Amino acid sequence: MKSNLFLSLLVSGFSLSVFAQEPIQVIEPAKIGNAAKVELGKKLFFDPRLSKSGIISCNSCHNLASSGTDNLPTSIGHGWAEGPINSPTVFNASYNLAQFWDGRAADLKEQAGGPIVAEVEMASSHDIVVKTLAGIPQYQQEFSAVYGKGGIDIDKVTDAIAAFETTLVTPNSDFDLWLKGDNKALSAQQLRGYQTFKEIGCIACHNGPAVGANSYQKMGVVKPYVTKNKSLGRYGVTARDGDKHVFKVPTLRNIELTAPYFHDGAVWDLAEAVNVMAEIQLGKTLTAQQSSDIVAFLKTLTGERPQIVLPLLPPSPDTMFKAGEEVELAEE
Amino acid sequence: MKSNLFLSLLVSGFSLSVFAQEPIQVIEPAKIGNAAKVELGKKLFFDPRLSKSGIISCNSCHNLASSGTDNLPTSIGHGWAEGPINSPTVFNASYNLAQFWDGRAADLKEQAGGPIVAEVEMASSHDIVVKTLAGIPQYQQEFSAVYGKGGIDIDKVTDAIAAFETTLVTPNSDFDLWLKGDNKALSAQQLRGYQTFKEIGCIACHNGPAVGANSYQKMGVVKPYVTKNKSLGRYGVTARDGDKHVFKVPTLRNIELTAPYFHDGAVWDLAEAVNVMAEIQLGKTLTAQQSSDIVAFLKTLTGERPQIVLPLLPPSPDTMFKAGEEVELAEE
Repeated sequence: MKSNLFLSLLVSGFSLSVFAQEPIQVIEPAKIGNAAKVELGKKLFFDPRLSKSGIISCNSCHNLASSGTDNLPTSIGHGWAEGPINSPTVFNASYNLAQFWDGRAADLKEQAGGPIVAEVEMASSHDIVVKTLAGIPQYQQEFSAVYGKGGIDIDKVTDAIAAFETTLVTPNSDFDLWLKGDNKALSAQQLRGYQTFKEIGCIACHNGPAVGANSYQKMGVVKPYVTKNKSLGRYGVTARDGDKHVFKVPTLRNIELTAPYFHDGAVWDLAEAVNVMAEIQLGKTLTAQQSSDIVAFLKTLTGERPQIVLPLLPPSPDTMFKAGEEVELAEE
Repeated sequence: MKSNLFLSLLVSGFSLSVFAQEPIQVIEPAKIGNAAKVELGKKLFFDPRLSKSGIISCNSCHNLASSGTDNLPTSIGHGWAEGPINSPTVFNASYNLAQFWDGRAADLKEQAGGPIVAEVEMASSHDIVVKTLAGIPQYQQEFSAVYGKGGIDIDKVTDAIAAFETTLVTPNSDFDLWLKGDNKALSAQQLRGYQTFKEIGCIACHNGPAVGANSYQKMGVVKPYVTKNKSLGRYGVTARDGDKHVFKVPTLRNIELTAPYFHDGAVWDLAEAVNVMAEIQLGKTLTAQQSSDIVAFLKTLTGERPQIVLPLLPPSPDTMFKAGEEVELAEE
């Protein structure tokens, strides 16, 4: 009854007074605090010299030209190795309560240090990366300008990358326009989908500005989730039995762009992903109309992707330590 | 005698009248003819869906954030395969008399079709790429807007990529400023290096706006060039014995950025590259001062790299043919 009243209020246009109570809030546009730090972080984000091979950058698996992901089930890294888990989008990642699917990094800064050293990702080491960057005069200057004297260290490298990533938000989605009072921003089907999303219980985990990303939940609350993926989620961090198969609830912002879905990237079709979640998390079998409505709502969460001017990376001087010299290649 | 007169004219400032006779000409800024086509080509250049894996784009080996190359001896492609030859820069590639080291593609359009299907590069097929792009509504619209009706075909795909690549020029290098009459643009050492570059004969092959790229020459005219690289150069195109080890003379524009050098990417140090060339092409052993001067001159050929706004790639609809579904991964 309450929800019917709510819906009729929405449809009749008397909706402004209830917006403050919506369980989803708008994504705010990025505030650029230290522009020089953000610019430095952008260079590092795009710089393949952070990898052992010299060809993999943060942007390789978090492609800012597309979805902030690589749109693969699991990433391909150094030596064409298969990553252990689906690469999450870097868009709006500053809203995550912690980073990685298992939340093992407290924040973006801590996260940024991980892939650099992961054998199946960039396969380098913090020492090598610092040595490489320190050999590039323009980086020396930029780090000094941002962090003062003391040279380059991995703490500054990851801090700058995190500062850049914090700017990667996607405001002004249709849903946000609607939240801000534009009653024409959503169609009747999209509104119906949002209503269903709330009524059947998706909203219990997918709420807040990121429509998720603010809690951990078991994958398979009602029915077990069958997967070939070996990750045990939070258990790897806490070693508590109850945390087996518990993962950070992913954001649904820009979900239309970030297929394939789930921590194993097993599902490409958004409607199928919705149906699976309803079944294993809520014990509900959706009608075709319900899942179609929810998908229509989810697509209203696609925001404005940041417009990125490709950085011009500082050239490597002749004398620098070159990651590329150590590259190991597959046999011909 | 003539060159001494020439140098004194330069130094004395009476140089404008002789500039027209310089064997190197300026790089002109890009003229954008069909802006919609260029923008479409930019999307395609950055789109990893042109590859079988879904992670390799033109930009992977021709990185516009750095040098238009991957700064590796030879590229790493699909399955971490080693490419057969050093990836040449895409900057100013429109000045090349033909494309690839062996000139087997007449122009940028013909070139663009090659890496898409090469097993050690993107490992896809023209049919799959066209099918993939045709499954993306926004691409359908953009191709129609640029090329009219008739759908997407590989001819249009490569034409658009070539149109974008034609804009990737690097004007306003210090050397070009000097060519245009700014006598203060070059230092005494840089001018001396240019003079030596001409006197000892480098200029015979490295001339024109691209300072090369307009002829084929044997690698090892005076002394044989020792390399593990198996490419026979133009011989692969013409099957003429005299074309063995004959390659397109590479541009020296932005040479400071594009290490490692030569078709085999064997040399990282620019001074060493200069010394090797003097020895095997001209039979001359340079003094340390001479090679240092020439390097100083070569660094004046670094131009303004194009400022690229990263394209926002059209999302893949749920229903599309997905290259990523066919990805083959290394065993764990």
